[in-house]
Amino acid sequence: MGNHPTIEDVARAARVSRQTVSNVLNTPERVRPVTRERVESAITKLGYRPHASARRLRTQKSSTIGIRLDPMSNGISGSVLDSFLHALTEQADQRGMRVLLYTAADPHAEMAQIRKLHDGADVDAFVLTSTFHGDPRTEYLIAGGVPFVTFGRPWGVDDMNDPQHLWVDVDGASGVREATEHLLARGAARVGFLGWPSPSGTGDDRRRGWQSAMAQAPGMDAATLAALTITASDSVTEAQSAVLRAHAAGARWDALVCASDSLALGARMAAASVGLAELPIVGFDNTPVAEAVGLSSVDQRLTEVAAGVLELLMGVSGKAIVPRELTPGESHRLITPRLVVRRGDTGVDLAGAP
Amino acid sequence: MGNHPTIEDVARAARVSRQTVSNVLNTPERVRPVTRERVESAITKLGYRPHASARRLRTQKSSTIGIRLDPMSNGISGSVLDSFLHALTEQADQRGMRVLLYTAADPHAEMAQIRKLHDGADVDAFVLTSTFHGDPRTEYLIAGGVPFVTFGRPWGVDDMNDPQHLWVDVDGASGVREATEHLLARGAARVGFLGWPSPSGTGDDRRRGWQSAMAQAPGMDAATLAALTITASDSVTEAQSAVLRAHAAGARWDALVCASDSLALGARMAAASVGLAELPIVGFDNTPVAEAVGLSSVDQRLTEVAAGVLELLMGVSGKAIVPRELTPGESHRLITPRLVVRRGDTGVDLAGAP
Repeated sequence: MGNHPTIEDVARAARVSRQTVSNVLNTPERVRPVTRERVESAITKLGYRPHASARRLRTQKSSTIGIRLDPMSNGISGSVLDSFLHALTEQADQRGMRVLLYTAADPHAEMAQIRKLHDGADVDAFVLTSTFHGDPRTEYLIAGGVPFVTFGRPWGVDDMNDPQHLWVDVDGASGVREATEHLLARGAARVGFLGWPSPSGTGDDRRRGWQSAMAQAPGMDAATLAALTITASDSVTEAQSAVLRAHAAGARWDALVCASDSLALGARMAAASVGLAELPIVGFDNTPVAEAVGLSSVDQRLTEVAAGVLELLMGVSGKAIVPRELTPGESHRLITPRLVVRRGDTGVDLAGAP
Repeated sequence: MGNHPTIEDVARAARVSRQTVSNVLNTPERVRPVTRERVESAITKLGYRPHASARRLRTQKSSTIGIRLDPMSNGISGSVLDSFLHALTEQADQRGMRVLLYTAADPHAEMAQIRKLHDGADVDAFVLTSTFHGDPRTEYLIAGGVPFVTFGRPWGVDDMNDPQHLWVDVDGASGVREATEHLLARGAARVGFLGWPSPSGTGDDRRRGWQSAMAQAPGMDAATLAALTITASDSVTEAQSAVLRAHAAGARWDALVCASDSLALGARMAAASVGLAELPIVGFDNTPVAEAVGLSSVDQRLTEVAAGVLELLMGVSGKAIVPRELTPGESHRLITPRLVVRRGDTGVDLAGAP
């Protein structure tokens, strides 16, 4: 490192002008073959590499993707975005792209960050996470012509197929339906659902998966389904309290499906304390915690999500950063998650029959 | 975004040459005040901002810190480096620095990445994590004159005070000693230690903290201490098996101090299954899992670690990226962790007296 050969060193070694070296690098077709070979040989011999900033200035490309790093939530579910970041960085690296992190306290601060990074040509494209209904960021990016992909679908009705809004999301309803059907098939009849308060795009989507599976089961009218539903914010202790309150009020379940591993862990602790240590419980996110305590869970397949994000940005094999001509069907990917069944630490199959 | 004013637009508006605008930006002291004011006024009016790549090329500064993102470990302890990354990114942002991620399969691949990023002036300085005895990366960086700080001390004996190797680390021995002394003060006599196989720089350091606290307790000879020690690799199930094996072989403890939360969770599950659900157990790392299951743990204070890293790189208030003149005592920070005491999910104080 330290001192590197400069373009002047190459020019001197090849006995050409600085401009000729520059032409060989940028418009080789304009340089006579015999001269080009001499310059290329000098480049190789000296180990000259064009300065990245100069190259970026020339090409207006930084080969860099920007992504916001959310404040540390100190929670269990927060690890999902960290896992996604790992998958994205690893796969971006394989495609010659880097990942630049930034922070922002709210969507408006994030828009200011995006503007700064994009204006400076520091970042070619952005990956937005934690989308929500009425999210101002996507409209802003579309208006500014800034390439981006969201991990998370647009939660408005009209823009799901907008070819200007590229997105990758996980089909939460499908994952929760699979978990519920698995429990029903193993003999559970009253499968409860522990989810977040409505409205929540992600949470309501997951609850719909449970509802659609339960609608197939015999005797499941609206009142019965309502009696099987528990609501809590995404915290272990809130979930624990909510399950204990519902149990004290007489609610009974053969099994529980939960909108997150945090909720599932709270349910697990509540169940154990009322003599239901063997109640089958399934979480969502397949976090390290679920693995550690032997909790079945729905895995979001974040490697697939990251691959989808990069494919939408760069094409399947190419280096293109959007915009390209995309049909509505090509502008998003909906990943089907998979159920991971584990035996719990009580020694019984937690996702098994009661 | 889209079209931005160029340096030519500013020159035209201020009725000066392109070179004069450039002088105002780079060497304003050389420009006559009346001209400078006219150019500055045009810059403000047009909202011109110098292109970041051009600025970087000029200053050879990228305002960017590079850090390797380790492959996803899917474990509990892996969240420590993610937490550190969050703290580093937030504080770097407050100092006008960005964080660029890269991946590397091994130390040699990392050195190649570092060379590429540093040669391209993409990154001003590097933060290295997961240092180990005989780590080739630090020697390489010192030889190349590349600014860096390691999170993790040099594990060799001679280089702890090398002013060329800046480092921040957490005093693991002190944290484990505090945890052990806490348990002894609450009435436990036979405090066991569950740690990783030796040699392990970090693991041996933590075990020394337990040893030094136990050495103060009455009747603790080498044989007793050996009988109180359990070893397992950093996995919940390995820890669970190791504790069960030791218990079956007749080992008895009043409490357990563990080198990580993964080990502590395994110990917790093992203890519960042999009727010792109330055995006080303390982990290390204060991960989300420890918080979720109510396990006492030693917190590394990663916000302090990140602040120390940035202070070593940039000075307490300045923008300097090392090298500066540093005395041996100024070239590192050893952060004292703190014990977080929690009540467990069994309803008893897990860190309390037996």
